[in-house]
Amino acid sequence: MIKKPLILVCNDDGYRARGIQELSQLAVEFGEVVVVAPVFGQSGMSHAVTLNHPIRLKSSSMNNGFSAFACSGTPADCIKIALNQILDRKPDLVLSGINHGSNASVSLFYSGTVAATIEACMNGIPSVAFSVDDHSPDADFRLAIQYARPIIQKVLVAGLPLGTCLNVNFPRISPEQCKGIKVCRQTIGVWKEEFDKRTDPQGHDYFWLTGEFSNDEPLAEDTDEWALKHNYGAIVPVSVDVTDYPAMEALKLWVF
Amino acid sequence: MIKKPLILVCNDDGYRARGIQELSQLAVEFGEVVVVAPVFGQSGMSHAVTLNHPIRLKSSSMNNGFSAFACSGTPADCIKIALNQILDRKPDLVLSGINHGSNASVSLFYSGTVAATIEACMNGIPSVAFSVDDHSPDADFRLAIQYARPIIQKVLVAGLPLGTCLNVNFPRISPEQCKGIKVCRQTIGVWKEEFDKRTDPQGHDYFWLTGEFSNDEPLAEDTDEWALKHNYGAIVPVSVDVTDYPAMEALKLWVF
Repeated sequence: MIKKPLILVCNDDGYRARGIQELSQLAVEFGEVVVVAPVFGQSGMSHAVTLNHPIRLKSSSMNNGFSAFACSGTPADCIKIALNQILDRKPDLVLSGINHGSNASVSLFYSGTVAATIEACMNGIPSVAFSVDDHSPDADFRLAIQYARPIIQKVLVAGLPLGTCLNVNFPRISPEQCKGIKVCRQTIGVWKEEFDKRTDPQGHDYFWLTGEFSNDEPLAEDTDEWALKHNYGAIVPVSVDVTDYPAMEALKLWVF
Repeated sequence: MIKKPLILVCNDDGYRARGIQELSQLAVEFGEVVVVAPVFGQSGMSHAVTLNHPIRLKSSSMNNGFSAFACSGTPADCIKIALNQILDRKPDLVLSGINHGSNASVSLFYSGTVAATIEACMNGIPSVAFSVDDHSPDADFRLAIQYARPIIQKVLVAGLPLGTCLNVNFPRISPEQCKGIKVCRQTIGVWKEEFDKRTDPQGHDYFWLTGEFSNDEPLAEDTDEWALKHNYGAIVPVSVDVTDYPAMEALKLWVF
């Protein structure tokens, strides 16, 4: 008997989020599914790992055709502990999300959802992050699910190049409004911060981090932000090797 | 009168660490220096940002020719709050470190020190992370300082390409043992985890994250790990654009 593919599912919104529940249900169509996800929301935790606290694991009661574990650590911790302590073999695929909120452009740097796929990718496992540009708990995931199905199918059959994972984002629209899905590059842009400065009852200042994304190239049709804005899904292949090769040649001319 | 260059200094080991004190003292040779660094150690925090807690700032008493602020947040928070709340103009350079511990190869993904430079780079500011492969509080930073001086000088004069920052690592050796510094690519490798499973007095399991780096290409002479192992410093130019361009072409053949 051929074993079904083993699919590990993670996210950064926590194991109870609707996005991961929908993604896990979809994954069950393709193989044996194990969910290992944070107990609480870990948005903005990037690729952080937990070094100074012990990590706790508990079996969750989700169990809709798959086993699930809630982990007290970060998304990267979830992947690490799944590979080392939970799974009895290397997964064939890691899925992360569906994130409540876009991880397009440089948002991927702050994203725990994308970090989970990068962690899997470092371990030689094909991995895909899915996100929808809608932070609400009851976001509409129909469009994401519609495209996630063939993407999962394709990655399970064809794999991904070693050192490459996928960052897939969808706009906040219905499937009917969507014009398709495009392979894109990461948009050049930056989050412009506006700290909200307040004073506590003891008279001490404190700050809340707020900000908005600023797109440096809103007219570039090959970018993920352009795709989302124009009602397309966006697939960006992400490289674990972040060496800037063209810059290497210039730097080699420096003499010390 | 020509203004001196403004240099922002950050790290992830906390504002009291010896590494940042040595780097700040060096930076004073080149311009006006402002230190904004975490109150406590933030190793392994990657590019995390603080969304669910307020951020506190306090003026520190370091003041050896520069002003210093301790920030309750992450290294990425430090850069954001420095740019938005502390500095009266955009810095000419951001330096991060000197980190107590190597950030070569994929360790850069977990590093708050490197994340601070990436955050600066996104904001169009030339930035350099320095690390020494020695975690001890009284690590020998002489070699790092020896090479940091001409690197800072060069970056202040020549700048760096937009979207590129530098990840500079040094082995744990004396300046006399060092054979030079090499421009390298990021080594392909992975941290292999071995969770240390223990049981608390209440009978519940918990895990400590431990692990060791596994180099997939120990013989590759153009990599940063090879350089460190062979008594060279290593400069890796890091790209903020992590799009895998060759993979884009392959993915465009996928049809949905």
